[in-house]
Amino acid sequence: MIFPKEGLNEQNMTLFFVNKINVDNCILSDTESRHCLKVLRKKNGDKVYVTDGLGIIYVSKIVGVQKQLVQLGDLKIFKKKTKKVKTKIGIGIIKSNTRFNWFLEKATEIGVSEITPLICENSEKKNINITRAKKVLISALKQSKNTTIPKLNEPMNFFDYININHKSSIIAHCHNLEKFSFEETVNRFKKSSEINILIGPEGDFSIKEIEESKRLKMKSIYLSENILRTETAGIVSCQLLELFFNS
Amino acid sequence: MIFPKEGLNEQNMTLFFVNKINVDNCILSDTESRHCLKVLRKKNGDKVYVTDGLGIIYVSKIVGVQKQLVQLGDLKIFKKKTKKVKTKIGIGIIKSNTRFNWFLEKATEIGVSEITPLICENSEKKNINITRAKKVLISALKQSKNTTIPKLNEPMNFFDYININHKSSIIAHCHNLEKFSFEETVNRFKKSSEINILIGPEGDFSIKEIEESKRLKMKSIYLSENILRTETAGIVSCQLLELFFNS
Repeated sequence: MIFPKEGLNEQNMTLFFVNKINVDNCILSDTESRHCLKVLRKKNGDKVYVTDGLGIIYVSKIVGVQKQLVQLGDLKIFKKKTKKVKTKIGIGIIKSNTRFNWFLEKATEIGVSEITPLICENSEKKNINITRAKKVLISALKQSKNTTIPKLNEPMNFFDYININHKSSIIAHCHNLEKFSFEETVNRFKKSSEINILIGPEGDFSIKEIEESKRLKMKSIYLSENILRTETAGIVSCQLLELFFNS
Repeated sequence: MIFPKEGLNEQNMTLFFVNKINVDNCILSDTESRHCLKVLRKKNGDKVYVTDGLGIIYVSKIVGVQKQLVQLGDLKIFKKKTKKVKTKIGIGIIKSNTRFNWFLEKATEIGVSEITPLICENSEKKNINITRAKKVLISALKQSKNTTIPKLNEPMNFFDYININHKSSIIAHCHNLEKFSFEETVNRFKKSSEINILIGPEGDFSIKEIEESKRLKMKSIYLSENILRTETAGIVSCQLLELFFNS
């Protein structure tokens, strides 16, 4: 396979994000219209690319501007890519917003289906700024020309999360307990339609959390011989999930 | 294999960095001594771990403090890990110091043998703050309990670099030219003692640079179906190199 098949490297291709695309009547939002008209100085007839992050990038043309909003003409499918396997990550909330947003940016570039910030026993912080986080995702989607934006859930308690997400699930931690490599563990999930990985916060998962995961038959894994920071473990996981399940 | 074999997850294990360890007479530097005595309030007889980032973590005890410098007793090997394959990355200098330092931090956590910042045709910036960069590496080494610190070279011109580093080398780019996946390409290097990957700056490698790499028989690869930022491509490469060659 040779990439990019779809000519996605057109150097000046600018991708716009539209929340829920209506192919018969597509209008860019206030922010996206301003970017399109004021920053990129696009004009009637200019080619643009749009996506709602649900698997398709469309190509279209500007057909008009009404009340400073860009109106697009016929939308044609330019690139379509759906994941073979749904990849989910539950990740402990960390103290630094910067580091968490960095994880979100990289996870979107590399690709993951769903992200749930977890409130763990060792989480000092119990929430994230979802509005800010969604902006990070959209920005990374546009920049990376990815077709799919991760679904970002509201923060959830660890125990509630694993109770509904314990099938095809693996948990990465640094405790000195029986653990397996990512590679040997995920082979048993090769036929699953989704896979879920859990990454702990600073200070790792608690023993109680690990025990509960074990009771639910989740496999414990390690990602590296080194101790990875939470956001690094998150990025490494997204990369491994893409490599093993969606490449 | 179950990790950590060496009990490396002792929760409070603090690792100190010593530049070139002399096992018969090991003294912590000014900064490390201050951290040891003032922040961690360690005392005579306390157990400490030290490394010079050359493949070994030693365990020792504090035997004295002279002129505010911590003196260590007998150094015993606690963990030893040398890479099977030397992994090298040449990476285009990017505009943002923050993003470049982020790459350095993550590359150290994940593990890579050598990093060379490249001055490419599309590099807007031609240098990095090496002193600051080395501090990032040491900090990430200590935090991740890695045994090996990447060798960080001075920035080098792309063409000079590939002239001396074109054997077992691959170059990742987004141009619409013949390219192969990382996996299919590196298989031919399975018996090499070192492997080298090149990552472009913002704006990618120039056509002239790609052509020169081709003339030197380097293989062009892609890392993702998406367009990865330079620092993301760098981190993804380190992870892939570790996975394919050193795990």
